[in-house]
Amino acid sequence: MTMDLWYTEKQTDNFGITAKIKESLVREQTDFQDLAIIDTLEWGRMLVLDGMVMTTVKDEFVYHEMVAHPALCTHPNPRHVLVVGGGDGGVIREVLKHPQVEKAVLVDIDGKVIEYSKKYLPEIAGELDNPRVEVIVNDGYMHIHDNKNAYDVIMVDSTEPVGPAVELFTKGFYQGIYDALKEDGIFVAQTDNPWFKADLIQNVNKDVKEIFPIVRVYGANIPTYPSGLWTFTMGSKTYDPLEVDENSIPEMETKYYTPRLHKAAFVLPKFVEDLVK
Amino acid sequence: MTMDLWYTEKQTDNFGITAKIKESLVREQTDFQDLAIIDTLEWGRMLVLDGMVMTTVKDEFVYHEMVAHPALCTHPNPRHVLVVGGGDGGVIREVLKHPQVEKAVLVDIDGKVIEYSKKYLPEIAGELDNPRVEVIVNDGYMHIHDNKNAYDVIMVDSTEPVGPAVELFTKGFYQGIYDALKEDGIFVAQTDNPWFKADLIQNVNKDVKEIFPIVRVYGANIPTYPSGLWTFTMGSKTYDPLEVDENSIPEMETKYYTPRLHKAAFVLPKFVEDLVK
Repeated sequence: MTMDLWYTEKQTDNFGITAKIKESLVREQTDFQDLAIIDTLEWGRMLVLDGMVMTTVKDEFVYHEMVAHPALCTHPNPRHVLVVGGGDGGVIREVLKHPQVEKAVLVDIDGKVIEYSKKYLPEIAGELDNPRVEVIVNDGYMHIHDNKNAYDVIMVDSTEPVGPAVELFTKGFYQGIYDALKEDGIFVAQTDNPWFKADLIQNVNKDVKEIFPIVRVYGANIPTYPSGLWTFTMGSKTYDPLEVDENSIPEMETKYYTPRLHKAAFVLPKFVEDLVK
Repeated sequence: MTMDLWYTEKQTDNFGITAKIKESLVREQTDFQDLAIIDTLEWGRMLVLDGMVMTTVKDEFVYHEMVAHPALCTHPNPRHVLVVGGGDGGVIREVLKHPQVEKAVLVDIDGKVIEYSKKYLPEIAGELDNPRVEVIVNDGYMHIHDNKNAYDVIMVDSTEPVGPAVELFTKGFYQGIYDALKEDGIFVAQTDNPWFKADLIQNVNKDVKEIFPIVRVYGANIPTYPSGLWTFTMGSKTYDPLEVDENSIPEMETKYYTPRLHKAAFVLPKFVEDLVK
């Protein structure tokens, strides 16, 4: 007889997912959050922060590609890129697939996420040591405050707005991002799911529209995230992702994003479209 | 102290969903399958067949709209429509939103699904008594065999290929559908998810391509189905869904499908695109 261990995550008070565990690798209360890395049979190794799945080896490509490529394929010359959060390094790995990017800066508040991701999730974090990457352990809010007119593209790869990520969903933060971007800059943030967090999507959309002239929302299927339908909100000063010529997007080695999907991802189900009208 | 009851569905051997239950309304072994209707806090009432969520009051609109509308908005004059399976009546409700449809025939092998859906899921099954609808309790495989050149559009709203639905995923069945369609007919079937059932999607695609000249696959987000990303395979004798003029699609009262989504739904993530190349 063997004992079965399952990780069960309540994604809402009344609904959740459950995954069979091979092994628990890390469990630590860091200065900022409850950090765990578990090895699951279905999804491989899984990073969990404050009881929420952040990424898994099997489905991580969706989230990381879809944070990085729509914005980078919209900006004609993204040389300086900032990733706020994202200490697992997955977004950085995708950013580096764009040869125009000279420097990608990662600012995560929690050095432990970086440290454990490098050790236990090398497929995801492997590019954090790339010479084009600068890793800074700091508060993202402070970093954007201190760097005006500095970046072509800023990506916010945060947890849901609990714990250290709360300030990353405020209008003040979006204004800071606007100021940290160059005059034709673009930013993108993960903005949770429309089934359980419709209010959040609506509020972010309203705030970002008051700051950026071009605001677009797109979606992607992420099986281990609540509802499986994730949204991303893009704010842009000049370039419209819907005006991009798909034929000009370079082929990259991806598993989710394609030039064909670039515009299609912005076509939302009716009930989501209605949230961001 | 109250006792918490949870419905946990293993969608694979190592992964599942879990939903808190208010009340269990029906549990019956019918002649064909294990049928349950439970009332959940997150999704409302839920129909479960052989341990798999078929539909829930909260998210049913996605599946039912996305079975019905892409095919019916591709065919220029869908007068006679067949739904195989779908005893809950949700697809029929959507089919009736198309005024050209003179007759919609529902053939479900299990009369108990129809009976209990009418009783406990009236929001979904309410149109089964509509005079434009004919409900037949019979084996869908037999029905298509006995009705040649009879339908403009055939929709296969089956369970996964276990129990009574096994024969609905065979090449012989697709050939029968081809013969039951008129000379410019279209069929569509739900074809499970690409995360856990990639083989099924590939096999169905191969079989359908050997029979129909035009074969297209599209997707939709269904939170209570495995992985949250569901696929549908369309086989067509004449009309290509990608050639439809979006501006000619009528506005309907929907919550997921829109004319804008008509073509976007066919743009698949790279790893799904690769399955059906």
